[in-house]
Amino acid sequence: MPEIEAVTEKTEQAARPKDVVRVGIIGYGTVGRASAEILASHAEEIKQRMGGVSIVVARLCRKSPQASESGVNGVRVVADWREVAAADDVDIVIEAIGGITTAHDVVRTSLENGKAVVTANKALIALHGEELFALARRRNLPIGIEASVAGGVPVIHAISEALAADRVQSVYGIVNGTCNYILTQMEQHGIEFAEALKQAQEAGYAEANPSLDIDGLDARDKIAILARIAFGHTINAAEIPVNGVRNVTATEFHYAHRLNSTIRLVASAERTAQGIHIAVQPWLEPRDSMLAKVDGANNAIFIAGAKVGTQMLYGRGAGGNATGTAVLSDVLHIAQQIARGHTSASNLTGFYSAEPLKLAPRSQPMSWFLRLTVRDCPGILARTAEAIAREGINIDSVIQEPHMPKDKLSFVVTLEPTLEETVQRAIKTINSFEFMREPVLLLPMISSVEEHV
Amino acid sequence: MPEIEAVTEKTEQAARPKDVVRVGIIGYGTVGRASAEILASHAEEIKQRMGGVSIVVARLCRKSPQASESGVNGVRVVADWREVAAADDVDIVIEAIGGITTAHDVVRTSLENGKAVVTANKALIALHGEELFALARRRNLPIGIEASVAGGVPVIHAISEALAADRVQSVYGIVNGTCNYILTQMEQHGIEFAEALKQAQEAGYAEANPSLDIDGLDARDKIAILARIAFGHTINAAEIPVNGVRNVTATEFHYAHRLNSTIRLVASAERTAQGIHIAVQPWLEPRDSMLAKVDGANNAIFIAGAKVGTQMLYGRGAGGNATGTAVLSDVLHIAQQIARGHTSASNLTGFYSAEPLKLAPRSQPMSWFLRLTVRDCPGILARTAEAIAREGINIDSVIQEPHMPKDKLSFVVTLEPTLEETVQRAIKTINSFEFMREPVLLLPMISSVEEHV
Repeated sequence: MPEIEAVTEKTEQAARPKDVVRVGIIGYGTVGRASAEILASHAEEIKQRMGGVSIVVARLCRKSPQASESGVNGVRVVADWREVAAADDVDIVIEAIGGITTAHDVVRTSLENGKAVVTANKALIALHGEELFALARRRNLPIGIEASVAGGVPVIHAISEALAADRVQSVYGIVNGTCNYILTQMEQHGIEFAEALKQAQEAGYAEANPSLDIDGLDARDKIAILARIAFGHTINAAEIPVNGVRNVTATEFHYAHRLNSTIRLVASAERTAQGIHIAVQPWLEPRDSMLAKVDGANNAIFIAGAKVGTQMLYGRGAGGNATGTAVLSDVLHIAQQIARGHTSASNLTGFYSAEPLKLAPRSQPMSWFLRLTVRDCPGILARTAEAIAREGINIDSVIQEPHMPKDKLSFVVTLEPTLEETVQRAIKTINSFEFMREPVLLLPMISSVEEHV
Repeated sequence: MPEIEAVTEKTEQAARPKDVVRVGIIGYGTVGRASAEILASHAEEIKQRMGGVSIVVARLCRKSPQASESGVNGVRVVADWREVAAADDVDIVIEAIGGITTAHDVVRTSLENGKAVVTANKALIALHGEELFALARRRNLPIGIEASVAGGVPVIHAISEALAADRVQSVYGIVNGTCNYILTQMEQHGIEFAEALKQAQEAGYAEANPSLDIDGLDARDKIAILARIAFGHTINAAEIPVNGVRNVTATEFHYAHRLNSTIRLVASAERTAQGIHIAVQPWLEPRDSMLAKVDGANNAIFIAGAKVGTQMLYGRGAGGNATGTAVLSDVLHIAQQIARGHTSASNLTGFYSAEPLKLAPRSQPMSWFLRLTVRDCPGILARTAEAIAREGINIDSVIQEPHMPKDKLSFVVTLEPTLEETVQRAIKTINSFEFMREPVLLLPMISSVEEHV
């Protein structure tokens, strides 16, 4: 049985220092290709940084294998990922096929075969992270996931290593470049959501089926990963309340502009008196805040530590080269372990905890922006104001543009700091009014980024 | 000879996995105290993150040892640092005394005694980094320097690890919180430099002798460290051209405001066609740029990689807790190595190169802001404009407020993009004019942060 011999040989090799570490890449889309090309084009610098250890692509799996591939000459190209995951001459597997089902098999099989794994697959890690990290720990193997959140921005490291001695209070920011691109286009050109989405698709920032991005599910998976690392507990991503950007209209940007603000989709996780609150939703941000400066497809993550204060990391959150750079930062880190003759499991403790964390409501009072769209008739403002007053909430401002169409009129009410559950009660009442054309759009207002913490 | 026995025993211990890693702290000022207190107050979380390995302060050296110390109970406190650097029960030495001469002895002796070292001492590393890293490498010992630049912001990691597979094009930003605090105060309150410095001293942001900060030497040491890590070459910090903030007056802020800009002290290192250009000087920044948003004592570092694009890291650049958190991120990282029974030398290759890099001039044409302070007389503008025209430089704007005192009148000239050496020739001519009250103040103008790269 040659397979068993091969595995044995591999185990022995792993115990000896090496001067070449071999990578297998499974999936040859944007990220797989960029990873291979950077390894090839920066080979000399990488060898120097690795103290003389080379990292080479030994095998590559793509759907339609071709004899030669620019930038990855001499690589054995195969169509069956199992050949890569089982190959003797592969030390580290880069999972770059995306999706969940096959990717799950790829990572599990690779770990079972004694390979370290690096992946940018946030959906996979958000859903199956616990199982995969547990399997990896039993075999003393690392899983690198730096690329799974915020592309090339080293946010996983910043939380897990740089703040290892601190206590994280909150993690929040812009983690979905597609939504940020759409919101930026809406803001800058006064266009509606559908038009901005079309532009994002034409520019390559949004998929043909954009739901994972615009409905906030991608951001949800990312904050579920960051929260595990920040707070050391398993998170059930499906429990996180999510509002995407699909319901944001040009009207909100118009009123936001009057408030000297803009709108950004923010994923947030923070310690509260009752536990950890996590949410994904659009926020109203002052135009001169740092978060509002994050334009286009960029990402920015704020991390507040009890001791270190508030940090921010900013950069490209997607794209082959940015994500490939992050994938390779993990590959190089793991390759150093392999070159020294031993590997060790990841210390991302959140993936090892048994019980998913029970999520807590937002406990801080916040200011709120409510957009109401109504069929005009006498008494709208009186009844709305009464519904708000009944909950003991103070109105901060009412803004209504003149000359709007009677049958679909939008206006905005902003509220003084109030608990979310109190506001939700008032909104439930307002949504029941017969003049409402659509449900209230509710956005938290951040008076300044620093104050959020 | 008990010392030799002790060292032998220590070496054997280092080869075995441990469940307690012992730290010796030398120097008990802001950083040493914060490091000890965070280790004590976050002991449980740290043990969890370390997979059950505890980190304890075993010994502490301070000038006037006291029997007990809040937060560091049970620690042996001594007055002679050699006791800590030689102690059997110390695995990692935190050098926190600052300055150069004794700190140099502390780090060298600790390494010679087989201890790993962590330090926040940028002046020491900028001056003696090569010698100390070479010594550490011979003994397979790490030196942690994350805290030496930008306090708790993990910029060393971002360059050396996150971008390990990329090629850094430039590193630049605000790395001195004292200067940034002073410039922010001048901007916000319209006050002069001397008053802002006094406020910084009262707020604890500036030393009684502030020269290292305000003359740009601290920023120079920090960019010399970042450039080594980014470009993989030894740098002679003394060769870096430095202009501090001492000559920036309320007048510049007045004119900067008219240009919708502000002033920040920027340390920069970038690849040019001729090599690496490094400088420390005040820049004129558009008010709505990300760099201009960095207020008070905060730091922000931009890192541009060939593949990853431009990243930015922002946070508190100083203070015991922020710096202590960074010190401890290195301590925990090294403690993981020690707990597993082996240590390895740092892979910051720039500290191992033999030849200091010959620095190159700035090769990109830039826009420039010139402030002239003159004794008023006829012909000043004509002669100034002629000196500029003679070098083939186009003037972009001339701004002069009315009703200024005749004997000390300031005005501003801004220039279209020009090479620095060309501008310097014109300034040499202008500075020779008899009506000049003081040398021209020259600031590069950045039309946007992203464009700088």
